[in-house]
Amino acid sequence: MYFSKLFIPILKNNPTEAKIKSHQLMLRIGMIKQASAGIYSWLPLGFKVMKKIEKIVRDEQDKVGVQEILMPTIQSSEIWKESGRYEDYGEEMLRIKDRQEREMLYGPTNEELVTDIFRSSIKSYKSLPQLLYHIQWKFRDELRPRFGIMRCREFYMKDAYSFDLNDDEAVFSYNKFYLAYLKTFERLGLTAIPMAADTGPIGGNLSHEFIILADTGESKIYTDKRIFEVKNKDITLEKESLKKLREKYEKYYSVTDEKFNEEEFNKNVPEEYRLKTKGIEVGHIFYFGDKYSRPMNASVDYKGKKEFVKMGSYGIGVSRLVGAIIEAKYDDKNEIMKWPLPVSPYECAILPLISKNDNSNLNKANNILKVLKDNNIDTIIDDTEENFSAKMKKFNLIGIPFQIIIGKKSDQNLLEFKELGEESKNINLDKIVEIIKSKK
Amino acid sequence: MYFSKLFIPILKNNPTEAKIKSHQLMLRIGMIKQASAGIYSWLPLGFKVMKKIEKIVRDEQDKVGVQEILMPTIQSSEIWKESGRYEDYGEEMLRIKDRQEREMLYGPTNEELVTDIFRSSIKSYKSLPQLLYHIQWKFRDELRPRFGIMRCREFYMKDAYSFDLNDDEAVFSYNKFYLAYLKTFERLGLTAIPMAADTGPIGGNLSHEFIILADTGESKIYTDKRIFEVKNKDITLEKESLKKLREKYEKYYSVTDEKFNEEEFNKNVPEEYRLKTKGIEVGHIFYFGDKYSRPMNASVDYKGKKEFVKMGSYGIGVSRLVGAIIEAKYDDKNEIMKWPLPVSPYECAILPLISKNDNSNLNKANNILKVLKDNNIDTIIDDTEENFSAKMKKFNLIGIPFQIIIGKKSDQNLLEFKELGEESKNINLDKIVEIIKSKK
Repeated sequence: MYFSKLFIPILKNNPTEAKIKSHQLMLRIGMIKQASAGIYSWLPLGFKVMKKIEKIVRDEQDKVGVQEILMPTIQSSEIWKESGRYEDYGEEMLRIKDRQEREMLYGPTNEELVTDIFRSSIKSYKSLPQLLYHIQWKFRDELRPRFGIMRCREFYMKDAYSFDLNDDEAVFSYNKFYLAYLKTFERLGLTAIPMAADTGPIGGNLSHEFIILADTGESKIYTDKRIFEVKNKDITLEKESLKKLREKYEKYYSVTDEKFNEEEFNKNVPEEYRLKTKGIEVGHIFYFGDKYSRPMNASVDYKGKKEFVKMGSYGIGVSRLVGAIIEAKYDDKNEIMKWPLPVSPYECAILPLISKNDNSNLNKANNILKVLKDNNIDTIIDDTEENFSAKMKKFNLIGIPFQIIIGKKSDQNLLEFKELGEESKNINLDKIVEIIKSKK
Repeated sequence: MYFSKLFIPILKNNPTEAKIKSHQLMLRIGMIKQASAGIYSWLPLGFKVMKKIEKIVRDEQDKVGVQEILMPTIQSSEIWKESGRYEDYGEEMLRIKDRQEREMLYGPTNEELVTDIFRSSIKSYKSLPQLLYHIQWKFRDELRPRFGIMRCREFYMKDAYSFDLNDDEAVFSYNKFYLAYLKTFERLGLTAIPMAADTGPIGGNLSHEFIILADTGESKIYTDKRIFEVKNKDITLEKESLKKLREKYEKYYSVTDEKFNEEEFNKNVPEEYRLKTKGIEVGHIFYFGDKYSRPMNASVDYKGKKEFVKMGSYGIGVSRLVGAIIEAKYDDKNEIMKWPLPVSPYECAILPLISKNDNSNLNKANNILKVLKDNNIDTIIDDTEENFSAKMKKFNLIGIPFQIIIGKKSDQNLLEFKELGEESKNINLDKIVEIIKSKK
């Protein structure tokens, strides 16, 4: 793929309207463009990253046995009146009247709609558990949208819902998502810590936020540093195994602001392990029992008795993760971004020095591209006539982890190969392919 | 995958509210559930089919060099006032006021927004052509939504936009989409005929609808039967080759209602080839020059002169195609649906006869599943205790093209294998794998 053919509108300087580094970078390298306040279009570079994140999120939901569906963005107000949240939700809910004057709304979340789907189809406890998810656009009419796609109005989210017969089974479902979330963030190259959290407007009494550390984060967190060392290897999808996983994490004090208690913190965490800092919420899971199933009459028959199902919900901000990864990985002092390979827009960039009337370096680049393509390495060639320093600067921002540089002195066999942020070395193409493949 | 674990709510009888066969089938086998008037949730079976269609649509866009972006669903009214369509669009446009009383709308199409993206980034003719597409939810507030997802309010659509310097280049872009559309519908197992069409509210003077024949279609068509035999093999992405492709089709009279002229029809089409019938529109392409670029001031510099870019737009109804394929393939008299393999929710169904306290057939099914899985054949096992005739009836409707039936007399080596609508035969598993793979 040639850089010059792509729709990647690069800005020379940091946009002044952007206050945090993810917003700055995303505008600067043309990943997004604002459409209106708090609403963005995703341009090819941003879109590619978001789609790769979405794929990993989906894959880890599928692995723990959640089924994918797709609910619409526009909902009827009726089900929200049934649950009692229509009035509660306030002005963040985008309320709409259609041409027939029916009260509709743009879904900020889907507990009501999925409960309606469940109750119309599932009648017996034998069909439980049911775990359903969808990945769909949501709208929350923030009073002051800011920080680009980190706190915007229209956002892309994975939300899942579980339906079980009793608390014990419901916690089992909850723990499956707990594991899926740890694995998802790990694959995205992030260290996300599960923290006991408040349930807010969703309701219920068991909840965890998954938080990555970042100075620009809006969540205050209080944690025992040892929690960063907990491993989730060798966990199976069985009750006991998942229970043990949670216990391993819950050995360490780790809470968000609303749950924080100074005395407990000091009592439970030895001084050298105490960490008070800021973070970004990238996932949130809730168990709320029959909060929605009871008012909405979602029940199953259990041996002749009617039982309201016990529900949980589980969110991951897919579009928000693009920004969160930048916040975690972008060195804005030195203007170097490096995407984790699984979500990088391309895996390798070829930067040939091209002068007018001399296509030899571009031809070399094309030949290398062919070999990389045959090895399924997604590659971009910077075919512009910019000088090396301009190309370097640009690709330091674009953040593709591997670069092949073709300058005046390049010969056919040894190529200048660089992993972003490291020294370059001269090696042959076979070796380059081997290195990139080993990192995939 | 076990049938009993999936969220596939089957109805015993045809739902009385559904008037056409795609709507009937989709409700009956639990592909969709109505959320409110003209708005549907996609359940796992429907979702899988739609995703497979989406993937093929995407792939064929990528192949002709269109870049994928993603524009938001909610747009500001301002750009629509610039183009002059804000008033024109009427009540089908879902108009919204946000909490700040700003006029917003749910995008029914994206000419304005994509033109805004283009004009803010592209300044020189050297960056042309630009071909951009996205696959996103749209909303049209139909007065009388009907026929399930065929004429609904919230629908999933691929829309693409081209930007060129002049008419000649713009027609070249147009023809790329013309080819991409023919190939897309072919891969979906559909015979879609390009027909000269009216441009309607989009504007312009060159337009084709892609139409598949169906009695339940809402488009009247007038065509020369010989057009069904035209081939699009060996076409390259070059101007001349694409021009010839269009000429091959345009040799035959083929128009929709608005363009129909009885006299021309009779003059140009020998009587034995005349066909007046009904069809379903599955794609629509438009060339409209500077209709949007001029009022919205989207221009490029061409050797010191300002030139308004020449634009086209290109739509495929992704969600609608699910219904269109059913209309084309479902034999509702005999209640047999057969999905084209590339979009079938599963590729093979294993139907074991299971009686209480005897798991032997289920075990056999599991062993077969393993082999099929190793061969990347996506398979579902009906693990319910229903009798054979109930299972058959159900799977005739679900429409998975290949079935393996394990009854009382099955032995390990010869399996009863059936392609839907054909006689079953007893063959071994290796042969079955070979047959399915050869059809992929």
